Amino acid sequence: MNVTEDLARFVVETPAEAIPGPVLHEGKRCLINFLGVALYAARDPSLDIMLDVFRHEGGRPNASVLGVGIRTSLQNAALANGYLGHLEDYDDTHFPTVIHPSSPTLPASLAAGEHYGSSGRELLAASVLGMEACCRIGMAVHPAHYDAGFHITSTCGVFGSVGAAGRLMGLSTGQMVHGMGVAGTQAAGVREVMGSMTKPFHPGMAARAGVLGALLAGRGFTSATRILEGRRGFAAVMSREHDLAEVTRGLGERWELRMNGLKPYACGVVAHPLIDAMIALRSRVGQPAGQVERVDARVQPLVLELMDRPDPKIGLEGKFSFQHSMAVGFIDGAAFPAQYTDARVVDPEVAALRGRIRAEVDGAMPEDAAEVTLTLKDGRSYTENVAHATGAPQNPITDSQLEAKFRALATHALPNRRAERLLAMLWDVDRLSGVGELMRLTRMPRSVARD
Amino acid sequence: MNVTEDLARFVVETPAEAIPGPVLHEGKRCLINFLGVALYAARDPSLDIMLDVFRHEGGRPNASVLGVGIRTSLQNAALANGYLGHLEDYDDTHFPTVIHPSSPTLPASLAAGEHYGSSGRELLAASVLGMEACCRIGMAVHPAHYDAGFHITSTCGVFGSVGAAGRLMGLSTGQMVHGMGVAGTQAAGVREVMGSMTKPFHPGMAARAGVLGALLAGRGFTSATRILEGRRGFAAVMSREHDLAEVTRGLGERWELRMNGLKPYACGVVAHPLIDAMIALRSRVGQPAGQVERVDARVQPLVLELMDRPDPKIGLEGKFSFQHSMAVGFIDGAAFPAQYTDARVVDPEVAALRGRIRAEVDGAMPEDAAEVTLTLKDGRSYTENVAHATGAPQNPITDSQLEAKFRALATHALPNRRAERLLAMLWDVDRLSGVGELMRLTRMPRSVARD
Repeated sequence: MNVTEDLARFVVETPAEAIPGPVLHEGKRCLINFLGVALYAARDPSLDIMLDVFRHEGGRPNASVLGVGIRTSLQNAALANGYLGHLEDYDDTHFPTVIHPSSPTLPASLAAGEHYGSSGRELLAASVLGMEACCRIGMAVHPAHYDAGFHITSTCGVFGSVGAAGRLMGLSTGQMVHGMGVAGTQAAGVREVMGSMTKPFHPGMAARAGVLGALLAGRGFTSATRILEGRRGFAAVMSREHDLAEVTRGLGERWELRMNGLKPYACGVVAHPLIDAMIALRSRVGQPAGQVERVDARVQPLVLELMDRPDPKIGLEGKFSFQHSMAVGFIDGAAFPAQYTDARVVDPEVAALRGRIRAEVDGAMPEDAAEVTLTLKDGRSYTENVAHATGAPQNPITDSQLEAKFRALATHALPNRRAERLLAMLWDVDRLSGVGELMRLTRMPRSVARD
Repeated sequence: MNVTEDLARFVVETPAEAIPGPVLHEGKRCLINFLGVALYAARDPSLDIMLDVFRHEGGRPNASVLGVGIRTSLQNAALANGYLGHLEDYDDTHFPTVIHPSSPTLPASLAAGEHYGSSGRELLAASVLGMEACCRIGMAVHPAHYDAGFHITSTCGVFGSVGAAGRLMGLSTGQMVHGMGVAGTQAAGVREVMGSMTKPFHPGMAARAGVLGALLAGRGFTSATRILEGRRGFAAVMSREHDLAEVTRGLGERWELRMNGLKPYACGVVAHPLIDAMIALRSRVGQPAGQVERVDARVQPLVLELMDRPDPKIGLEGKFSFQHSMAVGFIDGAAFPAQYTDARVVDPEVAALRGRIRAEVDGAMPEDAAEVTLTLKDGRSYTENVAHATGAPQNPITDSQLEAKFRALATHALPNRRAERLLAMLWDVDRLSGVGELMRLTRMPRSVARD
């Protein structure tokens, strides 16, 4: 069994044309989702810390940091953009493994694609193949690896990033094997850091590890030839249980990217079916919040365990308040970051509606389902049943929902017209002649006012 | 139990004066040993691969790559110098854990010390405290962690490098806690890559991880506050068995650096007692190799298992030939890299003596012992018993043996007089006003001829 070599060959030698259309389309959706989320995050002050380190350390202006006016080395750009992709906890999720495959992989393909002048089609193919490698390795080690305490997004993410960057750098299959060795031995990240800036640092460091692995291997640096399956390799050392057949089974036929979901709402995932219900009720009821007498929800147990916060005081608490999430779903018809600002959380109309929302646990309720009954002051009552929340594998967000998400996020960093141009370019990325053109649209000094 | 915080406080707040003299002296010996080994390795062509990546990626000229004329970013310098320190497998060893503490730690302290203008005394203190942190964490997770397949030099090395660099950057104790979080979650390295360039890459990546952790934490980046002892922290996730009390027990009183040994010979460690014996016999016998009729050794079993190569053809095979190692010990009185070149291995006098050397296993022979009997053609016979090989904890190499090693290695990259100045400066490092002065002596374009 030559798992590493087979996977390296797949990533290097699969022609873009051999990737099925729906998989490429899912890849585009990942790009759009990732860029929206990262552009939004680029206004977070914590990015300044990282940019200040870059200024101190230097780096050739080879690749862009998203949403700011800065170009830096490929490794720096990969680190920063991976950080931005995951900072808001709003990126994609490969449901079978809880890997967020875009955040470690796409910063590597974007940096390499920008610097080496790749076409949009090649960017897309490399991104899809990198994410496929990442998710398949995740399948091989999940759940033991994650349960042990590793942050699977970064540990498996190094294979996504080296695959994507290495392909765009033109590595041979043999070089890719060594690149996977250099990247794979950098696989790291423990869950202890969750709740701090170091959590989003993880996909950044994974993106950087893959870029460095590709840069070294492309120049002849040697590593293990069996980093995945070797006796002292990734699977054996980092996961008590593993099944490496998952890496190569049906390679090129079955695509893990089909199991990747894009998060529609900027809050804890257990509230998502409740928000779906409230957005639907908003349309059906057509009355202002002041007319609502009460809202009663039947929910799965985790909702109360994780998100029972009737009176949040700051935006971050709002993200873990099902009451707040439901209230903004009804009033704003949305649950984007704008609904979780400190100001929005203390808004009197929102607070008043929150106070009229109750939930009761139903142990039989599936985890992506909910039932919500809304009663108006005039006595009329409306019930909404959600079987599968938006964003779950059985109910992916639509392209137009994704566009709304992208607009809500990207315009935080870019002027509206620029965001629209970028969105159009992303849907047409397979016809783009050079990634540089795309990245140019993402560069926007923070000082520039929005239009 | 606040293991991380206690260790961070120890590294940040221990005044240099509180470190016992013999420990500081051992720290100096580590610096001399590391610099000798790294300067020698700087002539290896594989370094060019890394330097070419640095040229491509860029970096401010803040810190020196040893033995070449290049200054680059702190992270790049740490990566390259960690690589050089371990490339020849000739660095130090903390015997209880098989950690090589200098290679991940000293590149970080040298880079930070050079850039921030630290005094030699502070360089020495930071290096000693960083190595102490690294080895103590190793004690807490050894042997389960290494047995699982992790390369303990890099995984524990990140704590050495962040400790050393962070102290020289002036981090507060609180910042050091976060720096250890950022560094600790980068802990990585699997043993599968041994035998490739990626093995010495490990201490390099550990050095770089610590420098980055210190750069970020010093600017306010946040991480876990209990990276070592947390439920999903380093020890719990990366070692099935561990005893974190090892990290803090007798901190400041008992020093792990006392258990650190410097390798005297540039070959497999099991041949070391045999080389000791041959060097001793060389002095006692005082006859050329041509007068030797036969040599008979009694050895522990691993010697034949690992190093039975009577007729090596290239230098690398010579490093794993006990016969060659014994022959050069007698003929040259040394087993430095010069004794393991391709040319030296095919030398007729050396080959002839190798052919007259036999070994027999004695199952009762301790692993750092050997007995060698040399018989001359005139019938006279000499027996040498070695109880503890040079470099073992019970028999550390002397300062003058270390000087000989340094000279044999450093003059490969530096002119003789420059190497002497550097050596003198290192013995006096606690009186050095700035690390920059020291690093200046190590910078030598490869094109410059030796004197």
